Amino acid sequence: MASPNTPLYKAFKNMSYKELEEIAQEIRKYIFNVVYNSNGHLASNLGVVELTIALYRIFDPLEDVIIWDTSHQSYVHKLLTGRWKDFKTIREKGGLSGYTNIYESQADRFGAGHAGTSIAASLGYALSDKIKNRKRNIVAVIGDGALGCGMALESLNQLNYQDVKVKIVLNDNNMAISKNVGTISQLLNNLRIKKEYTQAKEILKSSLEDSSLGKDVESVLKKVRNALKYSIYDTPASLFEELGIKYYGPVDGHDIKKMEEFLEFIKVYDEKSVILHVVTTKGKGFEETEKSPTKFHGVSKKEPDKVSYSKIVGYTLSHLKDFEFLAFTGAMTDGTGLNILQEICPDKVIDMGITEPSIVTTASALSLGGVLPVVDIYSTFMQRAFDSLIHDVALQKTPVLFLLDRAGLVGEDGPTHHGAFDISYTRLIPNVEIWTPLNAQDLANMIYTSVIKGLKKPRFIRFPRDGEKVEIQNILDNLQIVDGEWKFLKMADSALYALAVGTISQNVYEALKDYNINIIGVRSVKPLNEYFLELLEQKAEYIFVYEEGSLKGGFNEEIFKLRDKKIYSFGVKDEFVSHATREEQLEECGLSIKTIRDNFEKIVSKVKIQPS
Amino acid sequence: MASPNTPLYKAFKNMSYKELEEIAQEIRKYIFNVVYNSNGHLASNLGVVELTIALYRIFDPLEDVIIWDTSHQSYVHKLLTGRWKDFKTIREKGGLSGYTNIYESQADRFGAGHAGTSIAASLGYALSDKIKNRKRNIVAVIGDGALGCGMALESLNQLNYQDVKVKIVLNDNNMAISKNVGTISQLLNNLRIKKEYTQAKEILKSSLEDSSLGKDVESVLKKVRNALKYSIYDTPASLFEELGIKYYGPVDGHDIKKMEEFLEFIKVYDEKSVILHVVTTKGKGFEETEKSPTKFHGVSKKEPDKVSYSKIVGYTLSHLKDFEFLAFTGAMTDGTGLNILQEICPDKVIDMGITEPSIVTTASALSLGGVLPVVDIYSTFMQRAFDSLIHDVALQKTPVLFLLDRAGLVGEDGPTHHGAFDISYTRLIPNVEIWTPLNAQDLANMIYTSVIKGLKKPRFIRFPRDGEKVEIQNILDNLQIVDGEWKFLKMADSALYALAVGTISQNVYEALKDYNINIIGVRSVKPLNEYFLELLEQKAEYIFVYEEGSLKGGFNEEIFKLRDKKIYSFGVKDEFVSHATREEQLEECGLSIKTIRDNFEKIVSKVKIQPS
Repeated sequence: MASPNTPLYKAFKNMSYKELEEIAQEIRKYIFNVVYNSNGHLASNLGVVELTIALYRIFDPLEDVIIWDTSHQSYVHKLLTGRWKDFKTIREKGGLSGYTNIYESQADRFGAGHAGTSIAASLGYALSDKIKNRKRNIVAVIGDGALGCGMALESLNQLNYQDVKVKIVLNDNNMAISKNVGTISQLLNNLRIKKEYTQAKEILKSSLEDSSLGKDVESVLKKVRNALKYSIYDTPASLFEELGIKYYGPVDGHDIKKMEEFLEFIKVYDEKSVILHVVTTKGKGFEETEKSPTKFHGVSKKEPDKVSYSKIVGYTLSHLKDFEFLAFTGAMTDGTGLNILQEICPDKVIDMGITEPSIVTTASALSLGGVLPVVDIYSTFMQRAFDSLIHDVALQKTPVLFLLDRAGLVGEDGPTHHGAFDISYTRLIPNVEIWTPLNAQDLANMIYTSVIKGLKKPRFIRFPRDGEKVEIQNILDNLQIVDGEWKFLKMADSALYALAVGTISQNVYEALKDYNINIIGVRSVKPLNEYFLELLEQKAEYIFVYEEGSLKGGFNEEIFKLRDKKIYSFGVKDEFVSHATREEQLEECGLSIKTIRDNFEKIVSKVKIQPS
Repeated sequence: MASPNTPLYKAFKNMSYKELEEIAQEIRKYIFNVVYNSNGHLASNLGVVELTIALYRIFDPLEDVIIWDTSHQSYVHKLLTGRWKDFKTIREKGGLSGYTNIYESQADRFGAGHAGTSIAASLGYALSDKIKNRKRNIVAVIGDGALGCGMALESLNQLNYQDVKVKIVLNDNNMAISKNVGTISQLLNNLRIKKEYTQAKEILKSSLEDSSLGKDVESVLKKVRNALKYSIYDTPASLFEELGIKYYGPVDGHDIKKMEEFLEFIKVYDEKSVILHVVTTKGKGFEETEKSPTKFHGVSKKEPDKVSYSKIVGYTLSHLKDFEFLAFTGAMTDGTGLNILQEICPDKVIDMGITEPSIVTTASALSLGGVLPVVDIYSTFMQRAFDSLIHDVALQKTPVLFLLDRAGLVGEDGPTHHGAFDISYTRLIPNVEIWTPLNAQDLANMIYTSVIKGLKKPRFIRFPRDGEKVEIQNILDNLQIVDGEWKFLKMADSALYALAVGTISQNVYEALKDYNINIIGVRSVKPLNEYFLELLEQKAEYIFVYEEGSLKGGFNEEIFKLRDKKIYSFGVKDEFVSHATREEQLEECGLSIKTIRDNFEKIVSKVKIQPS
């Protein structure tokens, strides 16, 4: 094996297929051990081991431009491009990112985390190469799930028109994070199982074997081209052909040699953009990961005692199954807890794939048709639907219930996945309500209230990637109708007030309960609670604001409008928070119990007030 | 003609084609007169007169669900559904909206203004009908320009998978607002000019003529189906077929009778979703509107003395044509003024169609390829790229120059088109600069500076739908390198300070120049100007903040962080501002010269300060 931190892929050039296959197994074991013992994306990375090896024997990740879509499957890429040793630190604070990152390696050409951006990015690189007169290959590696994203489709529609020649490797494992959805994925399935598959490969194989007998390159290529023309090209993939993109495949994504034949071919193909359809098996190599790739999509450190807020959502909606509503998810049935509802009421859950803007607009129309939509999307992915929220929901004041999961700091996934901005980007929208439950019961109650009572306007309910030690049945037994009023968590005879938004109030209470300070749980960011604002206006001298989200544009900026008070706010500063554990990130943002207490003490000693 | 405010379309049922054609001409003249003498969308509405008539003879706009995509072409729809008389007030304050609006009429099933939402909305209606066991037709009318939007494409990919039967009428005039772009539009063009077109129509015609001879409906339909199967269906429109959507057409969109034959057919077609390709001529009916549909896309009241800020952009970039940059537009080459640059340097302008998120991501990659991207998109449309701004630009800190045109109040287009939110939604993003030029020269200087000096991070430059009485040559002769420092427009010996963001400072200066108040022009919202903040901290007692944008999340919330000051802010309140003239809207938001002065006087008299 090559020296640990030099690009491994360079050593591959002269290796035999047998050696490569051994290395593939070694890589697979290494990834499994590192990820299984900490956390990260397992199944998708096991699926692309051979693909990445073959790709980097034909293309050069430092000379060419290889863009990994979503990039949760870029672990093999990282191992091959100089990060073998550092890989042990993946997703740890200060360690490698779980995604591509242009500041981590020259081989990481475009950072990602959200799906479907690679084709747009490859177009940008191709346009720059035109201007700079550079000759290199631009390759986007995209999964079948990401291909259904609006961005991927609209960029596919541009390649031919903008006259660039991009090479797309479609990594088809028939699987977004949940089971893939949409007509295109059905279409790929048809291609995948077509009979010509094996036959075509045989024709190709024989013509390539001829080529090794010393004929000139052009005639070899011609032969290959003919072989493909009559076998592989004749595949009914007219979707791509109509978009002006040459289609080749499918090819077995675990057969390095076969893939190389195809990759070599798309490398020299120079007429227009080209897509190579590679069929891989997610979780390849281990029985359990192959069988349950969804389960091994992301491996998390377990906190077995805690019930996640996502599960609270799933169980509460299941409890309400006899009411009329329809729950929407964007390829996150499991992550959002909607799988719990789907199991008992498959018709009540609609997975539209990674198409957030469409989901929001569809939901708005559903509500105009008289049915309550429950749109359950991670805070970070809802950014994609920002315009739909304004234009199709808020402006029409349609009653849609939005559940913003992973609102706040998400830990190891890092800055592409934090739900740092949702308070800021929803608060600016007219006609909406933003509810921020204080705990699991409160979350369940708010959902219960929304479904039972219906909505007068769009309502967001935000909650973080966390959970609580609770009994589900207990939660369900205690469901009650609630409003969004703020709540005293602790009353004190003092002019000191702590305002804490949503579940972070639990840390604030723990940190400050022994001081002589009023602690208020903020359960609604919009509308604000006029009674409490009036109270603060009259009684408060010092106000401490805590929110798990961006301070810029956040709730704290509403409180700063109060005059003649000393106000201190804590939350995500105006910067991107790197990957680390959620606890480390809360610490960094002054939202852990310890930092809340330390900062509070520092301030009160400085301004010489007596809180205790 | 029917009584002015009862639905005209109901009177159509028994009319002869000759009568219908006469009515079509009458409608055309009426629209021309109303729009030409005020403002609005002319060419697109002239193009759909016959289409709307035929559509409403076959479908019922009150019983069925007809969704007009973008809906700038819904004037005929409005005339036919009870708004003939009120149509004279279109786009006036208190009058009809220039777009569909669910609060204006029961026939307006979904509000629009941004392109590409109709298919997602039709999916939502279809899902609600399933749940409610309702039987009605769901029809989306979408232009060829909007079809290339990510939302339209990802929703097309859902219809078959979600097992709904939606009818799509593709209004193909080979024209988004500017000339249409993308491979799909080329594909439509191929369909449009195919030879079978006329022939197919003949076969269909003869089989339908047979049908009037008294045969039973089923056999007639079978004949029609066969005719279509062997002529029209055999069109190479496999893009749609692969997406699981039946394709019919093309049909002449100005031939009512022909269209009815096709519409009747897609009405009874019940196997899956279906698309009918209708070819229309934008601007149909008048020589000059047919010849120059782009010119007549939107008709505006002219202020002939003013040079629009969009043109300032176009001329400044043209002046800088020898520097390396690439300007991107989303189907708005003319609206953004980039047509001026395109005329002299066609290679420097990339129109990617209505694909804002892709444009932003492509631009980010272009900058990684070493070329400066200039992304010129209206503030309201940039909302669609919100996630790309965060995820693909800011997080990677790629130097992209964003020109946010139409930032602020836009007048007659109303709430779907205001650039009300951009200060709020960009200010919350880390790693970016937001520059707000005070006038035309300042705008030109900021662009000049960005192109000449390059950028260290993403930079937004925002400016409203307005202009100034300036000489272009004079602006270009006086270009200079600038920064984003704030600027005293008036210094006074007083503790009163007015802070005015960007060009609205012109109104503020006019309104307050005779009072003893300091007037500061805010030229950068991010970063803030520390020197001036310190000055305010020390010297200000009363601060008046003016910004042409949403107060929620806006610049004023940065100023409220200053303690121990009386602060008053003026801008767009937490609501959607209805259509009216821009002047009326400025008045409504307290940003006209008169209201700035009136409000100021009211406050100073109330708190008994002496500003003069």
